[in-house]
Amino acid sequence: MIIELNHSIQQAEAEQLAIDTKAFHIVYENAHYLITGSGVKELPENVKDKAVNHWVFANDLQLASSKFLPKKRTVQFGNVTIGGDTKNTIIIGGPCSVESEEQIRTSSTFISGLGLKVLRGGCYKPRTSPYSFQGLGLEGLKLLAKMRDEFGLTVITEVRDATHIQEIIEYSDVIQVGAKAMYDQGILRACAKTQKPVLIKRGFGTTLQEFVQAAEFVLAGGNPNVILCERGIRTFETGTRFTLDLCGVAWLKQHTNLPIILDPSHAMGYAYGVADLARACVAMGIDGLLIETHPDPSVAKSDASQQLNHAEFETLIQSLRPVASSVGYSIV
Amino acid sequence: MIIELNHSIQQAEAEQLAIDTKAFHIVYENAHYLITGSGVKELPENVKDKAVNHWVFANDLQLASSKFLPKKRTVQFGNVTIGGDTKNTIIIGGPCSVESEEQIRTSSTFISGLGLKVLRGGCYKPRTSPYSFQGLGLEGLKLLAKMRDEFGLTVITEVRDATHIQEIIEYSDVIQVGAKAMYDQGILRACAKTQKPVLIKRGFGTTLQEFVQAAEFVLAGGNPNVILCERGIRTFETGTRFTLDLCGVAWLKQHTNLPIILDPSHAMGYAYGVADLARACVAMGIDGLLIETHPDPSVAKSDASQQLNHAEFETLIQSLRPVASSVGYSIV
Amino acid sequence: MIIELNHSIQQAEAEQLAIDTKAFHIVYENAHYLITGSGVKELPENVKDKAVNHWVFANDLQLASSKFLPKKRTVQFGNVTIGGDTKNTIIIGGPCSVESEEQIRTSSTFISGLGLKVLRGGCYKPRTSPYSFQGLGLEGLKLLAKMRDEFGLTVITEVRDATHIQEIIEYSDVIQVGAKAMYDQGILRACAKTQKPVLIKRGFGTTLQEFVQAAEFVLAGGNPNVILCERGIRTFETGTRFTLDLCGVAWLKQHTNLPIILDPSHAMGYAYGVADLARACVAMGIDGLLIETHPDPSVAKSDASQQLNHAEFETLIQSLRPVASSVGYSIV
Amino acid sequence: MIIELNHSIQQAEAEQLAIDTKAFHIVYENAHYLITGSGVKELPENVKDKAVNHWVFANDLQLASSKFLPKKRTVQFGNVTIGGDTKNTIIIGGPCSVESEEQIRTSSTFISGLGLKVLRGGCYKPRTSPYSFQGLGLEGLKLLAKMRDEFGLTVITEVRDATHIQEIIEYSDVIQVGAKAMYDQGILRACAKTQKPVLIKRGFGTTLQEFVQAAEFVLAGGNPNVILCERGIRTFETGTRFTLDLCGVAWLKQHTNLPIILDPSHAMGYAYGVADLARACVAMGIDGLLIETHPDPSVAKSDASQQLNHAEFETLIQSLRPVASSVGYSIV
Repeated sequence: MIIELNHSIQQAEAEQLAIDTKAFHIVYENAHYLITGSGVKELPENVKDKAVNHWVFANDLQLASSKFLPKKRTVQFGNVTIGGDTKNTIIIGGPCSVESEEQIRTSSTFISGLGLKVLRGGCYKPRTSPYSFQGLGLEGLKLLAKMRDEFGLTVITEVRDATHIQEIIEYSDVIQVGAKAMYDQGILRACAKTQKPVLIKRGFGTTLQEFVQAAEFVLAGGNPNVILCERGIRTFETGTRFTLDLCGVAWLKQHTNLPIILDPSHAMGYAYGVADLARACVAMGIDGLLIETHPDPSVAKSDASQQLNHAEFETLIQSLRPVASSVGYSIV
Repeated sequence: MIIELNHSIQQAEAEQLAIDTKAFHIVYENAHYLITGSGVKELPENVKDKAVNHWVFANDLQLASSKFLPKKRTVQFGNVTIGGDTKNTIIIGGPCSVESEEQIRTSSTFISGLGLKVLRGGCYKPRTSPYSFQGLGLEGLKLLAKMRDEFGLTVITEVRDATHIQEIIEYSDVIQVGAKAMYDQGILRACAKTQKPVLIKRGFGTTLQEFVQAAEFVLAGGNPNVILCERGIRTFETGTRFTLDLCGVAWLKQHTNLPIILDPSHAMGYAYGVADLARACVAMGIDGLLIETHPDPSVAKSDASQQLNHAEFETLIQSLRPVASSVGYSIV
Repeated sequence: MIIELNHSIQQAEAEQLAIDTKAFHIVYENAHYLITGSGVKELPENVKDKAVNHWVFANDLQLASSKFLPKKRTVQFGNVTIGGDTKNTIIIGGPCSVESEEQIRTSSTFISGLGLKVLRGGCYKPRTSPYSFQGLGLEGLKLLAKMRDEFGLTVITEVRDATHIQEIIEYSDVIQVGAKAMYDQGILRACAKTQKPVLIKRGFGTTLQEFVQAAEFVLAGGNPNVILCERGIRTFETGTRFTLDLCGVAWLKQHTNLPIILDPSHAMGYAYGVADLARACVAMGIDGLLIETHPDPSVAKSDASQQLNHAEFETLIQSLRPVASSVGYSIV
Repeated sequence: MIIELNHSIQQAEAEQLAIDTKAFHIVYENAHYLITGSGVKELPENVKDKAVNHWVFANDLQLASSKFLPKKRTVQFGNVTIGGDTKNTIIIGGPCSVESEEQIRTSSTFISGLGLKVLRGGCYKPRTSPYSFQGLGLEGLKLLAKMRDEFGLTVITEVRDATHIQEIIEYSDVIQVGAKAMYDQGILRACAKTQKPVLIKRGFGTTLQEFVQAAEFVLAGGNPNVILCERGIRTFETGTRFTLDLCGVAWLKQHTNLPIILDPSHAMGYAYGVADLARACVAMGIDGLLIETHPDPSVAKSDASQQLNHAEFETLIQSLRPVASSVGYSIV
């Protein structure tokens, strides 16, 4: 249950009520809210005369639910707003991994040259093998920060595990929680304590319900700036790397209030299908797109097969504008 | 292996060579071809000096392969051509089931009033329960044929099992092989003996490779008019009925030469997501769309939750035209 | 709803009541039953004073439900009874395909030499490629019948589609409905009209609910002799051919009244795992096991990788006896 | 590639060679080994004359591979050895969560009263909702340690994320890495630095290959004491909570050298199926079984539906002994 407290109630009293009802306490648009588990169906006795509104839920999808906030939330990527009524589809481009200063500067020059605002690049790679390239770590984070300073780009990079979440929060403008880390409470609870935007990728074996509940950890902990990212689920089909779940995206648009960004590169796993899928994603009316592009995919240290080269990426972005326009959106 | 025989070779000799090499024999655009299993990697001795061309394959995706015919095949829906260079996206609309003459006439009036050309309606329903509505059978087929005569619509209906395939071939303009029947060789072999177009739906547990191999049964048996239809696969996600596999569609576009039609209604299972998904499908650059619409979905005898009402359907079709246009296609 | 009619009611009246209530009518252990869809929750007016008992269900799993018959049904394999209180685990052995008279006689000699009673062998192979070996068809059926006459074995073979179901019913002692054919109503309705046992394999993309509903087609049509066979479902894991669903078997034992036979050979797809899996199956307390064995797997025309050779099969059968005994069952 | 260095080579030189070849360095049974990625197919120049043996692999399943060590490794649970030639099947019993001192003492009394040696109990619960019971944390760990001291039991508990891995290593005898945490390199790398046994559960969306590669992180980092635990994968079937993958277990037995423990409780999700499944697991010939049992499942704070009560658990253990014996194993 979500309980909106009487607006005259102050911080200290709200905190005490949260303790008394074993609830989370958040402040959202200047009002105090308590959030209990969804098993609570009737207003607790001790808040009965202190609540101005309350919402009952069938399950623990609560703060993220469109039943609570029917209108989609907004989130800032630097100066750009997505979600709400903006009808912006933001493009997040860049290489799978930060590999060197030269490589990431080439990428930054390219991305900002196209008029795009957001640069991605992995520093802590969640590889499934200990024998693969694991990323540059802190050195990579510093390179990303340097690119932000030089090019004015908003940067986003992925946290692999809780041991370096504070570094990511410090260096990255947007925190990406990867598909393999999205159940990680060490990460989610840390993300709840910052106000930086958090992009949570759906695990490839994760139900929509569980996916949104990961967002609930961040929302209930006090950070309202959460974006959901569908990037393909694991199915019996192995002709492609994963299966992009656009039915799931339709479900998320209907049932949640969170902005949605899609990642067709990881879903497909092969460059040849990325452009068609990206256009399909944009035609869904979504808040952003995450596309991997590398100066020279053939020598990339990770995900070589699915990254677009710069010419392909540029052609793709040009082709997305009329598609976005046909559904009332703008590519930003 | 596909072997294109010397063009001077006549029907009788080609047939004898097929017997000698244990191969299928087809005539395609006035040339004779032999098709053996893909295990054959070198031209058989007895056709060595009778072949003008041959193609070797890694697996039994042969006649449907873009390695054999790099350009997409065309198929006729009445007067309308899809595939090839047409850039047509054909809309197939109508109710899940033919329920009565009044209902199907209302649907036909509506569909043809929108300027659309193709009417769908199930007569033999492949229900998983013996206690559900099973369709009107032959009576329904006759109603569809009546609508064709009255409205000039091309009609398409589904075969459930081999016991009534001859009826379907007789009454329907396009034969739909459903997701549960697509391994059925009794059906596929009968479809190979007609020249009517055959739309094969992917089974919800079927790999892309197996899906295209079902088409190979029809193609190798002598009917080149095959369309593939993706309609959602079964995954762990149950928030939606199935998972529409657009990564798979990208794979099919890359690896096969067959027109592709998508069915977002069955994939989603809920009316609320159908429009968004339909727009995504169209933005992929596809040859057609199959959408269920019913005069009054609330009283439909099957698939009540996923059928659009007529107002929703009309709004959807209007919204599809600019999306199709943005990728160079036309809605027909 | 299942309605047990007053025992004084005769065949003609029962049939008329079935028509009036749009229900199936069956005779089971000398009583007349009507079966409507599970949507019917209250006794229809016209049978209210003619019913001695009735069962209400949450879904269309009715005649197969343990709520209707709490005790497991029995089915005959020749002289051997399985199910009920018998605690028999019957072994069905033999090659994937009948390939020649010599081959199937070798198999029959071997199977009967081990004291086993049931011979399997495919004649109509449900291959996914038109270019693979498709089975000997009617010639194979006649060879199986010959082996029954020579060796006194009970024979079981698979129907591929409805075009040859009458042949299978005529020649085979037990009718096997394969994983790809189990939704085929042409087959299921024909099986309902015989009294021969019908072994239905679960489709690899089929839910437990749908699986049992396929059995409902046969049961509601008048044939009570149905056996369920789990043979592996399709999952994201491709290290093995399929994933044997023993959790599903536990579900079936709890919720249905039908005997259960397991097929570890098709699930595993590799001979090396079959013995371990077969022992696991037997330890579940099941009614039978279907194991592929070939005189020389390396030259088998289908499923070469998963068939045991005769020495391996014999060793396996010996090892199964103490496992069966440890859970109170006997290998027969 | 795994390279066994000449036995005269000392620690310092081995470490330098590891740096030079960008390889992991471990000591196993008094020999020094270097482990590079599997992409290395020929002995590096600088170790050519210093290697006594080397193994080439098709993929990054190397130290865990039965190609490297054909015989299964042994691991200690307190005084009990599993794996190797022991033919021991160890039982790990106890509640899903440590809930109170009284509850865990009741469990400990029960487990040790049955002659069993290992107690499980979750302290950091990896719940998918922030609103569910999250476990007692450090307080729970201390209670487990107390039980070890009082009852002489070996205790095992789960790490949820990297923030508390050092606590787990300090208090638990065996470290359990849960299904949602098994990609967590913060955890895996910490586990590599202890010599305590590490039980890694397979993620429900994790391939067998990825599963074993998680073990490679621990093995390559220097801890040889790894156990694999299959606990059910996520498939389209929702009648049961997960699908226990015994085909996968057969694969692991064939391709790896690690002991295997199975968890039928989490796979099934319902108490009614646990006993049948546990017997099936034991009949596979495995190294252990993890079964949830609670003094009163109806009031359990997590996994209420799948925990056995003490009477059911005791009956189960008794029934396992003859099954284990029938395949040459002993329940310990």
